[in-house]
Amino acid sequence: MKGTSIGWIGTGVMGTSMCMNLMNAGSRAFVHNRTRARAEPLIEKGAVWCESAAEVAQHCGMIFTIVGYPSDVEQVILGEKGVMQGAKPGSVIIDMTTSEPALAKRIYECAKQKRLHAIDAPVSGGDIGARQGTLAIMAGGDREVFDRVLPYFKIMGENIALMGGPGAGQHTKMSNQILIASTMIGVVESLLYAVKAGLDPDEVIDVIGKGAASSWSINNLGRRIVKGDFEPGFFIKHFIKDMGIALDEAKRMNLTLPGLALAHQFYVSAKALGYENLGTQGIYKVFERMNGL
Amino acid sequence: MKGTSIGWIGTGVMGTSMCMNLMNAGSRAFVHNRTRARAEPLIEKGAVWCESAAEVAQHCGMIFTIVGYPSDVEQVILGEKGVMQGAKPGSVIIDMTTSEPALAKRIYECAKQKRLHAIDAPVSGGDIGARQGTLAIMAGGDREVFDRVLPYFKIMGENIALMGGPGAGQHTKMSNQILIASTMIGVVESLLYAVKAGLDPDEVIDVIGKGAASSWSINNLGRRIVKGDFEPGFFIKHFIKDMGIALDEAKRMNLTLPGLALAHQFYVSAKALGYENLGTQGIYKVFERMNGL
Repeated sequence: MKGTSIGWIGTGVMGTSMCMNLMNAGSRAFVHNRTRARAEPLIEKGAVWCESAAEVAQHCGMIFTIVGYPSDVEQVILGEKGVMQGAKPGSVIIDMTTSEPALAKRIYECAKQKRLHAIDAPVSGGDIGARQGTLAIMAGGDREVFDRVLPYFKIMGENIALMGGPGAGQHTKMSNQILIASTMIGVVESLLYAVKAGLDPDEVIDVIGKGAASSWSINNLGRRIVKGDFEPGFFIKHFIKDMGIALDEAKRMNLTLPGLALAHQFYVSAKALGYENLGTQGIYKVFERMNGL
Repeated sequence: MKGTSIGWIGTGVMGTSMCMNLMNAGSRAFVHNRTRARAEPLIEKGAVWCESAAEVAQHCGMIFTIVGYPSDVEQVILGEKGVMQGAKPGSVIIDMTTSEPALAKRIYECAKQKRLHAIDAPVSGGDIGARQGTLAIMAGGDREVFDRVLPYFKIMGENIALMGGPGAGQHTKMSNQILIASTMIGVVESLLYAVKAGLDPDEVIDVIGKGAASSWSINNLGRRIVKGDFEPGFFIKHFIKDMGIALDEAKRMNLTLPGLALAHQFYVSAKALGYENLGTQGIYKVFERMNGL
């Protein structure tokens, strides 16, 4: 890692920690972000500010992106002054945003035409995982390109896998989000039932959080719900984006996912009620309201 | 435990292992079951066969029941030749069936009138937990009575808690089942999406089974689904019973649980399709059919 130059586009909560870990491991970082102020913590640590994504790409052979929505991915990679405009032949573009599998394939094809390489590599593990370098990283693309990026992934994460060709990383992340969506419905309904039945919900989690009903969600987000802590580990608004992508993909594949569709509707309701900047456990408030609590 | 006499009514897969553990710890068991043949393994080990639940109760001060449906609980405890007909004053009746909270309260009140005691104590952990004595036991009733039964519970389980007054054990088990219901929908939809997207579902579980999407269900039942193993750890027909009780209780409490209602419908579909004797992971087959797979 020592002495290598890497490009980093997107310095939000996740991106800042991930880039910082690469810098701490000895990489020199060239950074860009829509809002410069949010890149300051990295610049203070020695990162070089660039005025555009294209400029970042001119400086390095390995460019990471982690931005908000698929439209942002499209802009910073494929758009005017985007990565593709500045990248030197042979460079690798690694998009770590949770985004559309179809867009990942399009980026891969565009890259190929320009003698560039692309890997889609969304992550799971939240702000804490990003900070501690313990993220799960689900990648799609070519094996030899993945192998070149792997040493960098190992700085950022622990549970790293190449899942298949371009888009496979995004598809895996969708499987992850689909699983969480219905699990969260189970968590809030289970706790609401417990409260209504007059039980102590913390004592209920003590018992049911260990056996066949156990999940990360009940033991972590369930505990936060009981404490009344709705601070975001992961924003409702971002989860709605992810579920929307999964539903679009499912529609494209002619696949019916009624549990996901139901969960999505309740999260849309959460947004309608003004909860979009709460953590995903904020869905509990929707169920409370729906039950007159 | 050594030398004490206990009564055991219900020698199915769970009951046989649980009673066997008490016998191995030194208790003398008086047993009854609707079908005598299924009590033979216990009788061979020295258990004393009784012709009725009432006769079991005549012999012991502590009588455990674990039968099928609430109607069975009603019959063996409150019915003709039931436990109440034979029990001596001061005896404790411990129903470990997953049953209705309201019935648990009724049994508690009836017991009180006859100078008997009652505890509801459904379990979680399946056939393996029963055999290994690692069950979760969720109890409802009076503390002093619970404390008298606790040494026996400790032979059968590991995660044991008194959750409140009569019915609180059943309510806790309902919270457990509500949590599992929607989690299972997440598991099957997540795996189905992965398969449709061309991913290797086992590799997907390797990645998503460790982080924020992790659950006992994905790591155990998800793996079995991938192997095509639909053998029952827990029968679909019994899960339908449990969800039905939870929905009835929710209705009584004026509580809407749309995720549970949706899951229940799919499990009813599983029954309609002839899958009631599969394990709960068999719901995957319903989703496959629904998607023409």
